[in-house]
Amino acid sequence: MTKINSLQELLIDEMHDLYDAETQLLKALPKMAEAATDPQLKAGFEGHLEQTKGHAARLEQALSGLGEKPRGKTCQAMEGLIKEGKESISEKGPDAIRDANLIGAAQRVEHYEIAAYGTARAFADALGLHEISTLLKQTLEEEAATDRKLTELARRVNQDALHAA
Amino acid sequence: MTKINSLQELLIDEMHDLYDAETQLLKALPKMAEAATDPQLKAGFEGHLEQTKGHAARLEQALSGLGEKPRGKTCQAMEGLIKEGKESISEKGPDAIRDANLIGAAQRVEHYEIAAYGTARAFADALGLHEISTLLKQTLEEEAATDRKLTELARRVNQDALHAA
Repeated sequence: MTKINSLQELLIDEMHDLYDAETQLLKALPKMAEAATDPQLKAGFEGHLEQTKGHAARLEQALSGLGEKPRGKTCQAMEGLIKEGKESISEKGPDAIRDANLIGAAQRVEHYEIAAYGTARAFADALGLHEISTLLKQTLEEEAATDRKLTELARRVNQDALHAA
Repeated sequence: MTKINSLQELLIDEMHDLYDAETQLLKALPKMAEAATDPQLKAGFEGHLEQTKGHAARLEQALSGLGEKPRGKTCQAMEGLIKEGKESISEKGPDAIRDANLIGAAQRVEHYEIAAYGTARAFADALGLHEISTLLKQTLEEEAATDRKLTELARRVNQDALHAA
């Protein structure tokens, strides 16, 4: 149980949480890419791994602007999301069904990040921290774009999955 | 490790997962409502508790349409999200800061559900299961509306939090 005394402290807490979430994701994405069979999905996970490195770097920069270094605060929600992703990876069955399942797990992760970056950005805006808000917005837009790409890809993969049984 | 052989089996698996997520949320929302100090936020959590009962009932109806009853599949992601929510509940500090933190936790939960219902609905659409798709869409729209309300409420609460320190 800790105490948070100001909105700036709460923003810092959110960014530590997000940094841990991104770090966990950096370890999980190569396993998602390996498990995917659809070439476009595999490439998508590999591309998102590179983007995720950039998201972690932006958080380091934002934290540094407030005199902070990322610390080991475990993001418990991302732990749960990644457990769920591992279930999808270990699921047996036809390739397209497995891919459809992986997309579902990945979109849950994207939405988690959309919510968390959205919250952090609203705090930064209320605090008038424009540079930090811009960094958070850049990542937020990339996460939202990834989610849209996955929705698009799911249309085709779900059709493949329909005929895979 | 299990085997999923068809898109319909995957849809059923998703709905069991969502049913467990809603059930976990039914236990967590009264604690969120109790922890909230802003009257509008408190009322929002109480209202969402009633909606969540309806979401669980819709999943029972959708599963029943496929000859299934909800079974105890633990949604590990919701477990993580609720652990995070409990952190927000136990955090000490000024009321408005605590409320801002609770809103952040609640929006993560909403986004999880938006992603999960979106995936399930896409499966139902691909399978031509129109009645199930409609049930999932109704809940999806309510979750999205709740998320928008929380974004709106956060604007005021974040301003209160700014002056609470």
